[in-house]
Amino acid sequence: MIGKTVKISMLFDYYGDLLTDKQKEILKLYYYQDLSLGEISDNINISRQGVYDHLHRAENSLKKYEESLNLIKKNKNNIKLIKEISSYLKDSEDIKSEDKEFLLKRINKIHKNI
Amino acid sequence: MIGKTVKISMLFDYYGDLLTDKQKEILKLYYYQDLSLGEISDNINISRQGVYDHLHRAENSLKKYEESLNLIKKNKNNIKLIKEISSYLKDSEDIKSEDKEFLLKRINKIHKNI
Repeated sequence: MIGKTVKISMLFDYYGDLLTDKQKEILKLYYYQDLSLGEISDNINISRQGVYDHLHRAENSLKKYEESLNLIKKNKNNIKLIKEISSYLKDSEDIKSEDKEFLLKRINKIHKNI
Repeated sequence: MIGKTVKISMLFDYYGDLLTDKQKEILKLYYYQDLSLGEISDNINISRQGVYDHLHRAENSLKKYEESLNLIKKNKNNIKLIKEISSYLKDSEDIKSEDKEFLLKRINKIHKNI
């Protein structure tokens, strides 16, 4: 178990839909509702070891998805570039406001899609 | 089986790394080397039915990945926006060349990352 880190919740945001319903349920209880393995075991009527196994497999799956697809890494780079473009446009005194508007509108849409 | 379409090869480009080695091997032989089920069966020493099953499961997995993650759909939208930004910058007579250069460099990097 790699601990209750920010990283798992980010992996879950990106790849959570690829997990089974049971894995999703347990991961949410553990990371978002901050229940212990024992509390989850009582809640959903699975042994403590069963909860641990689901959690462990789910975390490994999430890490493998990122190793294969690199979405978080790629998107981190893209968000950095998007912010550079946005700042540049906003700070520029030479670029006309209608040009800024056209470009910022599309940059913001890309940001939302990522 | 959904046929030898462009769509599967696009799904494979995005999600191929999530398949098993055997699924990848069979998909490549079928879609990229254009072998028939029978030819693949002879080549890798699995029954024709076995080849079909691997192929069928692999195609279903690829479709499910896209249903969950929507990478192809999102990236299609982003590429359209990127092209609009690039054309706008290139065609503009008001935006200075150093501004164009700064912005296009970053837009092209985002395009490569997608």
